[in-house]
Amino acid sequence: MRTVIRDLLAASGPAASIEAAGWVRTRRDSKAFSFLELNDGSCLGNLQVIVDQGTPGSEDLTKMTTGASVVVVGKLVASQGGGQSWEVHATSLRLLGTAPEDFPLQKKGHSPEFLRSIAHLRPRTNLYGAMFRIRSRMSYAVHRFFQERAFHYIHTPIITASDCEGAGEMFRVTTHDPADPKPAKAEEDFFGKATHLTVSGQLEGEAFATALGSIYTFGPTFRAENSNTSRHAAEFWMIEPEMAFCDLQGDMDLAEEMVKYLVKEALEGQDGDLAIFERFVDKGLRARLEHVASEAFERVSYTEAVDILQKSGVKFEYPVEYGHNLQSEHERWLTEEHFKKPTTVYNYPKEIKPFYMRLNDDDKTVTAMDLLVPGIGEIVGGSQREERLDVLLANMERHGLSTEEYSWYVDTRRFGTVPHAGFGMGFERMLMFVTGMTNIRDVIPFARTPGHCEF
Amino acid sequence: MRTVIRDLLAASGPAASIEAAGWVRTRRDSKAFSFLELNDGSCLGNLQVIVDQGTPGSEDLTKMTTGASVVVVGKLVASQGGGQSWEVHATSLRLLGTAPEDFPLQKKGHSPEFLRSIAHLRPRTNLYGAMFRIRSRMSYAVHRFFQERAFHYIHTPIITASDCEGAGEMFRVTTHDPADPKPAKAEEDFFGKATHLTVSGQLEGEAFATALGSIYTFGPTFRAENSNTSRHAAEFWMIEPEMAFCDLQGDMDLAEEMVKYLVKEALEGQDGDLAIFERFVDKGLRARLEHVASEAFERVSYTEAVDILQKSGVKFEYPVEYGHNLQSEHERWLTEEHFKKPTTVYNYPKEIKPFYMRLNDDDKTVTAMDLLVPGIGEIVGGSQREERLDVLLANMERHGLSTEEYSWYVDTRRFGTVPHAGFGMGFERMLMFVTGMTNIRDVIPFARTPGHCEF
Repeated sequence: MRTVIRDLLAASGPAASIEAAGWVRTRRDSKAFSFLELNDGSCLGNLQVIVDQGTPGSEDLTKMTTGASVVVVGKLVASQGGGQSWEVHATSLRLLGTAPEDFPLQKKGHSPEFLRSIAHLRPRTNLYGAMFRIRSRMSYAVHRFFQERAFHYIHTPIITASDCEGAGEMFRVTTHDPADPKPAKAEEDFFGKATHLTVSGQLEGEAFATALGSIYTFGPTFRAENSNTSRHAAEFWMIEPEMAFCDLQGDMDLAEEMVKYLVKEALEGQDGDLAIFERFVDKGLRARLEHVASEAFERVSYTEAVDILQKSGVKFEYPVEYGHNLQSEHERWLTEEHFKKPTTVYNYPKEIKPFYMRLNDDDKTVTAMDLLVPGIGEIVGGSQREERLDVLLANMERHGLSTEEYSWYVDTRRFGTVPHAGFGMGFERMLMFVTGMTNIRDVIPFARTPGHCEF
Repeated sequence: MRTVIRDLLAASGPAASIEAAGWVRTRRDSKAFSFLELNDGSCLGNLQVIVDQGTPGSEDLTKMTTGASVVVVGKLVASQGGGQSWEVHATSLRLLGTAPEDFPLQKKGHSPEFLRSIAHLRPRTNLYGAMFRIRSRMSYAVHRFFQERAFHYIHTPIITASDCEGAGEMFRVTTHDPADPKPAKAEEDFFGKATHLTVSGQLEGEAFATALGSIYTFGPTFRAENSNTSRHAAEFWMIEPEMAFCDLQGDMDLAEEMVKYLVKEALEGQDGDLAIFERFVDKGLRARLEHVASEAFERVSYTEAVDILQKSGVKFEYPVEYGHNLQSEHERWLTEEHFKKPTTVYNYPKEIKPFYMRLNDDDKTVTAMDLLVPGIGEIVGGSQREERLDVLLANMERHGLSTEEYSWYVDTRRFGTVPHAGFGMGFERMLMFVTGMTNIRDVIPFARTPGHCEF
């Protein structure tokens, strides 16, 4: 019966016979015995295996090169060397699969670009193994955060006939044969209409929040933007809570609580996985995360933020002007240089925000909020939603939206409308924040970007 | 500060002042006071609110019709009537939103077909509210099951250039403008090649299992099959674990353990939500689930299953013949009539199974397994994977697959190959099984089927 290496390394005492399996990271040979460092993906740490000459299976030792797979049976004993508590003295071992010389992960120190080209193999490296274990644990923490607070998880649709953001770059979903010379008529397509990949589950989430109270989504979303930057992917995962009987204050409270919760998860739970990012990616990582976990966040209105930016004396690439969206450089200056802590900016001019945001009494601003974090900028964007039927309809007209097409959405205001609020958090942005990785392609198992859909 | 009704109904004692909010399910008026039944979606149960004449806000009582939204402040006291432990004597109440007479959920007893046409409102009914709370809890249980067993959650890609099942109906993903009369060239499309929506994350999951050990996926998958049945949707959620160093036995063990785990979750955890399905959908539901949770499952080889079916004397619509897939009627007879318990059928003829399944020593069968449950048929399908490079390449050639296109997949066998196994579980099938619902459209928030992509 195999025991995973994570459990062997955390053993409470020696064991007369254990079985382990994994991939060889390194092998060192001396005259009388060999050392194998075995990793099985369960954790960052390797199991050190000592193989005496003549041990059954040791005749294959020369084939047990980096990347080869091996099963070992042996005694778990206290380690003599440093670095690990336990090691295994093999009583037998067996080669499962060789790794020929063209195995690309022979040496350490490959570039991120090269490793992206072998995304199917890069989780076999220390850094990317840790990356994707962290991604898994953080995903689970997202669910735990909401489930502990009695939020219901809703699977909003991926294929959609609506467009939450009002126009925008969407992928089309079709069964029309591209080789067919006849034009693709939407009414003859699979769904009988034009359909696309969702850019947000918010509208459907609102329908469920106005029935089940507090809900969240956590699923893939899509942008067909032809922008090749380190922070954009065509496919990414988004978390979108939506709460009935909640206003902007409650919305900001939840966003801040969630960011802190996830940062604490990253700090506490990773069996050493986080340490490798601190060591090789961002020396200040742990200090930065501990700061975020313990400090109160700042809150500032958009109007105040513009004022602070204009009086800063800093020469920004893009000018700061009331009525324009804050650029990434402005957001990062606010949180990194000015407040030096995560900062929520709220109450944006209505002209630059979508139709569904609640109009404030000043008739100029809407209850939008963006949570900015150092090093990343916006990590959460949300708002209280416009629950007043007449105001919503006026907004939709102003934004050129068809109230007929969205009649189901309008129904949530026609029947028992309630104040409600929600936000979206880009999961990859959060992962970049907690690992210090600077390219979104390196926090996604198989990234999809313009011109790239390998594997 | 609002308290959710789920917590009020589970209060440990009376409270001098609580605040609750929700939607009116019913209102009854007598001369001196009115009863409001309030539901906020946190649970199946309603909060009974007693409003004396003259209570501040009671002037709006006549507008507090079914579907209207209300905030109430009052005393939480032991209930005089039956059915609930606690009720609220209002000290004030406030109408948030009315529900005009055209609110479609006035009366009880709507048909499932009608409720599908108002999928944005149906979670405001008892049955569908319970349905989607169960869906949420079961989703969380899926994650808990795997995380407790040290499986890593992997987000495999949704947009893909490969086709796991070998041909098959897939949706195309494109940014080509359908109004453009020029033919849509794949090399000019967003990704520079033809791309589709995934039908399975298995191949990518295998790449991660052969790095991280044990992984699982849980995400949307797609079929562009033009089949309008009660059990097929174009978009559904699938769970796909994959385990390195695991064989067919271990695969069947995990599948059975998972089915039992999820059934127990349905039985234990739902605050009365399951009871409504037992009452209105399937009287034998609880007994059936308890049977599944406690009984050992049956295992039978495909060859034995064919033999049993052929000797059964039952006249099936489709004949039973070695070398053909079992039909749904055969599967259901085996598990419902013959074994009367969940049954795993394993070792199918290689001709009817995909290229990636491991060939048995008999050279005739592969290590496929299907777990069948009463009332549903197949709920899990999986296999040990072919880890031998030469056999895999021969299989791929026999299935007409390009080893060049799948070279990354072949790499997992070229470098440190290991025995591994996995399976797929249709999440909606599991939900149908634990609720007794017979149409997949009724367990998905917004179902996508041929000709239907509303909301």
